Amino acid sequence: MSVLVAGTTALDSIKTPYRENPRLLGGSASHAAVAASFFAPVRLVGVVGDDFPRRYLTLYRKHGIDLAGLQKAPGRTFHWSGEYEINMNNRRTLKTELGVLEHFKPVLPPSYRQTPFVLLANNAPTLQHQVLDQMQRPRFIVADTMDLWLNIALEELRRLLPRIDALVLNDSEARHLTKEDNVIVAAQRLHRLGPRFVIVKKGEHGSLLSYPGGLFLAPAFPLTEVVDPTGAGDSFVGGLLGHLASSRGSIVANLKRAMIYGSVVASFCCEGFGLTRTTRVTRRDIERRVRQLEELVRY
Amino acid sequence: MSVLVAGTTALDSIKTPYRENPRLLGGSASHAAVAASFFAPVRLVGVVGDDFPRRYLTLYRKHGIDLAGLQKAPGRTFHWSGEYEINMNNRRTLKTELGVLEHFKPVLPPSYRQTPFVLLANNAPTLQHQVLDQMQRPRFIVADTMDLWLNIALEELRRLLPRIDALVLNDSEARHLTKEDNVIVAAQRLHRLGPRFVIVKKGEHGSLLSYPGGLFLAPAFPLTEVVDPTGAGDSFVGGLLGHLASSRGSIVANLKRAMIYGSVVASFCCEGFGLTRTTRVTRRDIERRVRQLEELVRY
Repeated sequence: MSVLVAGTTALDSIKTPYRENPRLLGGSASHAAVAASFFAPVRLVGVVGDDFPRRYLTLYRKHGIDLAGLQKAPGRTFHWSGEYEINMNNRRTLKTELGVLEHFKPVLPPSYRQTPFVLLANNAPTLQHQVLDQMQRPRFIVADTMDLWLNIALEELRRLLPRIDALVLNDSEARHLTKEDNVIVAAQRLHRLGPRFVIVKKGEHGSLLSYPGGLFLAPAFPLTEVVDPTGAGDSFVGGLLGHLASSRGSIVANLKRAMIYGSVVASFCCEGFGLTRTTRVTRRDIERRVRQLEELVRY
Repeated sequence: MSVLVAGTTALDSIKTPYRENPRLLGGSASHAAVAASFFAPVRLVGVVGDDFPRRYLTLYRKHGIDLAGLQKAPGRTFHWSGEYEINMNNRRTLKTELGVLEHFKPVLPPSYRQTPFVLLANNAPTLQHQVLDQMQRPRFIVADTMDLWLNIALEELRRLLPRIDALVLNDSEARHLTKEDNVIVAAQRLHRLGPRFVIVKKGEHGSLLSYPGGLFLAPAFPLTEVVDPTGAGDSFVGGLLGHLASSRGSIVANLKRAMIYGSVVASFCCEGFGLTRTTRVTRRDIERRVRQLEELVRY
């Protein structure tokens, strides 16, 4: 079944101690849409400016991504630039130029409104609400977020939580949102705010799912080299929802397996700048790595 | 088969934001010996002073621990006191009084010298060497260490590495020792210094085993409340070697399973001050939690 992915479509300029990479394809929706596209048909919602390179549209299309909901507005594409320190864990934002994102109002084409799986990739909660408002009874809604929105749009984020099935956030955000230091307790508390499923991303330490009556621990695929972790979280949630949309049967069992696939797609994302590695991966590469990960935890 | 556990036998005074606990039974050898005792007969090597409470000797004996190698010396028992911050991750040493540990020279009773499994629990590398010097062809030797020895006894620690089968250390120590930021690469590099097996402890994030030709990721048992993590690492390695000593068959397969058991014993350790929780646990409690942990990662 199809997946609607709404979020940011951006140009990312990424500096690491070793290289500079100007104006890569980036943004939460780009990463999530490509990740989801390995498993399910994807419909993209976003906005780009006049400066958006045509080759990136070609890249979306190569992944079979439906672009009917990708608006083109006069002005410049949202541009983020950041710098990683040598250990790749500390990121510093150098510049954020909103460009056409500033006045963006998502308008979903009629063909999108009945998409059964909805991913509200990281973006301002107001925009996440606006997307949901246009959907007709989706089967499963996942929302991702980031620390920025906890700081500047907490109320709208909290209003979103009762509207979604699953919340995805990282460990520090889960702690921040609940004022609870223990991540498992924090995840459990988040259910009270709305979502039946809470997925906490812990980067290289994997992720955990809290569901009614249970907990699941998913490992991260161990990497010996991280080139650029930008978009890894978006790839995780995109791969996750894409895989979920392609599965039948018990939602809990499917979510667990989907987290493993999300984790594997995220690991590929980290092995190249921006989307350069992910877009060269095949479904077969993913399946191979899923089997390797199974092997790495088997005893 | 039997396990020899050599390390520190101490009195620990542990402060947390909620409680003070003076003069608990502690030390690397105490935690490791109790942990190993659930699976195999244990022989303890250590030293205590005149002030060592008789009830702690009773506690060792209750766990069937052979005390022939526990020396009693005139003076005071090694005393450590520390304070945990509210999140239980940051520990501050308040005082370290070496007492009888200062002039301790381990002398192994003849009955100990052919013990097949040897655990050099965290202690000064000089003492770890002295224990090994007295052993007759043990089958499997594990050494644990801590950051202190990397800073003040690096050369002796490095000399120990070719003498052991498995090195256990935490992630920051693995990075420190190899000057390599990626933990997996760091673990792989450590083989070159001697040990065939390298086990990296990552606290709440589990542990990893690097072995010739492979890697294994072991989850930590997720706890919703950590009362006192002191001795968790020692319990992990003690439970690990105890379980290994009780297993037959392939060493790699046994080590993987032993890490799960070590992880579970360590989780009990964190649920009480000092050894108070661990010493109340039964083998059945351990087996139950091992099954729960299997369930938590199954998909």
